Amino acid sequence: MAGALPRSPLAPERLPDLAPIAGVRLAAAACGLKKTGAPDVLFVALDPGTSAAGVYTRSRCPSAPVDWCRRALPKGSARAVVVNAGNANAFTGQAGVKTVAATVVAAAKQVGCDWEEVFVASTGVIGQPLPEDRVARHLPDLAKALGEDWAAAAEAIRTTDTFAKGATRTATIGGTTITITGIAKGSGMIAPDMATMLSFVFTDAAIPAPLLQKALAAAVDQSFNAITVDGDTSTSDTLMLFATGRAGNPAPAGAADLADFQRALDDLTADLARQVACDGEGAQKLITIAVTGAISDRSARRIGLAIANSPLLKTAVAGEDANWGRIVMAVGKSGEPADRDRLGIAIGGVQVARDGMVVDGYDEAPVAAHMKTRSIDIAVDIGIGRGQATVWTCDLTHGYISINADYRS
Amino acid sequence: MAGALPRSPLAPERLPDLAPIAGVRLAAAACGLKKTGAPDVLFVALDPGTSAAGVYTRSRCPSAPVDWCRRALPKGSARAVVVNAGNANAFTGQAGVKTVAATVVAAAKQVGCDWEEVFVASTGVIGQPLPEDRVARHLPDLAKALGEDWAAAAEAIRTTDTFAKGATRTATIGGTTITITGIAKGSGMIAPDMATMLSFVFTDAAIPAPLLQKALAAAVDQSFNAITVDGDTSTSDTLMLFATGRAGNPAPAGAADLADFQRALDDLTADLARQVACDGEGAQKLITIAVTGAISDRSARRIGLAIANSPLLKTAVAGEDANWGRIVMAVGKSGEPADRDRLGIAIGGVQVARDGMVVDGYDEAPVAAHMKTRSIDIAVDIGIGRGQATVWTCDLTHGYISINADYRS
Repeated sequence: MAGALPRSPLAPERLPDLAPIAGVRLAAAACGLKKTGAPDVLFVALDPGTSAAGVYTRSRCPSAPVDWCRRALPKGSARAVVVNAGNANAFTGQAGVKTVAATVVAAAKQVGCDWEEVFVASTGVIGQPLPEDRVARHLPDLAKALGEDWAAAAEAIRTTDTFAKGATRTATIGGTTITITGIAKGSGMIAPDMATMLSFVFTDAAIPAPLLQKALAAAVDQSFNAITVDGDTSTSDTLMLFATGRAGNPAPAGAADLADFQRALDDLTADLARQVACDGEGAQKLITIAVTGAISDRSARRIGLAIANSPLLKTAVAGEDANWGRIVMAVGKSGEPADRDRLGIAIGGVQVARDGMVVDGYDEAPVAAHMKTRSIDIAVDIGIGRGQATVWTCDLTHGYISINADYRS
Repeated sequence: MAGALPRSPLAPERLPDLAPIAGVRLAAAACGLKKTGAPDVLFVALDPGTSAAGVYTRSRCPSAPVDWCRRALPKGSARAVVVNAGNANAFTGQAGVKTVAATVVAAAKQVGCDWEEVFVASTGVIGQPLPEDRVARHLPDLAKALGEDWAAAAEAIRTTDTFAKGATRTATIGGTTITITGIAKGSGMIAPDMATMLSFVFTDAAIPAPLLQKALAAAVDQSFNAITVDGDTSTSDTLMLFATGRAGNPAPAGAADLADFQRALDDLTADLARQVACDGEGAQKLITIAVTGAISDRSARRIGLAIANSPLLKTAVAGEDANWGRIVMAVGKSGEPADRDRLGIAIGGVQVARDGMVVDGYDEAPVAAHMKTRSIDIAVDIGIGRGQATVWTCDLTHGYISINADYRS
């Protein structure tokens, strides 16, 4: 299906320039899983000494690759990553486990490392066996082709994404400049494939695995955990962060030494997450929902996601309708503490409701004009605490239905 | 908007004959809240001695009428019900509270009862003040017109429903035959109104309020709490059950004496709930999801609702696509205990997957034929316990988007 869909109107003009990361070499190839014959396998080799962190789907029915990554991660060390698009290797029973094993063994042989230093991820159709050596047999050639073509890497992991996604940031640790580059894919979940969210982030910083994991967990909370397209959760969602140590920065003693790194990582992951929201199926508008005044940040994010997941709110935005009643409804259904008579709502910076009622002399004209733009800003003040969060989603359009109902698997 | 939408293809041929209930008299009138000028106020008078039970929205931002009903219910006695369609009187601040008070006082005057014996419900546009005497001033004329036109009552509470909804059942209590008749409205939530779910059920049985409340709570679990159109929760959902006692049955000592009544009430509320699902916005197919083998009935219902609320599953059904991977995905995202390798799925009675894999020699032809029908049956066996539940929903079509995005408020 990739390529059959028009490029999202919310896509950036082009993939940003992605800075190479010392200690990271990549190569992509086609192994025939994508019907178009486009590259669908990515092989990443990492220098010895690379530490690893990971966050995976909360699905109770995770894919075989996710099971493997969870098992390998405690070692905290990585030398290779193998990603394929076109087949999720999910709900494939023992056959799926064998395929993961064959891939891991083959990759470990190429780079000369322990099995637990190899991470795998798969995205694509679910429930269809992935032949045991389909990916593995390409690894020797891929190992010879390793280089720094990050754009090709971002392309290879796409499924039904309408554009490749990537971002680069720099930061300093103990006075040393380090670089972070990440790629991502995901666009909700498109027939016939499940368009899993995958993201791989690499840095040349030297950061031990436990600190790296903490940094990643903090970053994911305000990025990939703060976006939604349709509220559906893939069996295969995977976000990993690898640190090669080649920048030679002084070893961080704790999170305080990583403040600037954390800032850059937060910014980069939020950028990647927004790119995914902008590629939501049928998306015509990016919706940014800022919630303040909740009892906690966690409560604010839940309220934000309840709004972002409301089909009624998303269709109202698609219809360029400033239907704030649907925002009230979504706050109410979130189940989070709220006081109807303290609620305030602004759209496009214009106060619409305050203290639980529409504002006196509400003029819809400037709000209606804002609703016609590509980027819709909704601010909700719960009015009972200091918790805040920002979440992103896209509108729900005929395009979503066409992609998911009209195309047949 | 009522009348502008084509009648749901899942609607019954006509409203069933609704048996009158001794001790219940009704009247409907137009007070100008519906733009079409159709009747939009329902007044129900109940004989002295009528007991009351109620279940209300879980929204944290409930409407003023819901607040009132919650406050009045503990008395357990009812003499009047006032329902209006066209304005939800929600998110209307102190003005909304005053309107409820004016309506309650006027109704109490007409039937000669305490204020706490009057129940009110409103459905329609949110955030727009409902003038204080708009409904109240019609009550004197309505009180003179009381009769037994149940079809007119079912019509009056409609908003954007494409058909009126009602059901009748009989049962015996201690050898005495009793009758139950209920009406309902709801079709998801349609622009520009919030198509709240309202249902009012009446019986001539003599049942004390505490037992009546228990019976209603049990019935709602396997009926209105087991349907979903879009997962959005109204500020105003209201389900009430009134028992006039006019059948003269022996007083029930406990739930055991009400076994046949409970069976009939369960059946009636499930019927009404299915009628609401059949009127889901844009619905072309009714989807019945039977979950077995969960760790508890509660867990089974949560899994069923996760499947029923999945936009991906609902669009797949709209596209007549037997995409069982999306069922796996939804089971996984429910967060309920499940074992991927024990999961079984049947569609239209045909086993598709067993023990976490597609069945050997799976033949899609009979499943594809089933997907073309109006009523889609999905059975999911979690395989780890004895919990079970059945939930109902409808497919997600271009009609939903058109109704909610293309029409403007």
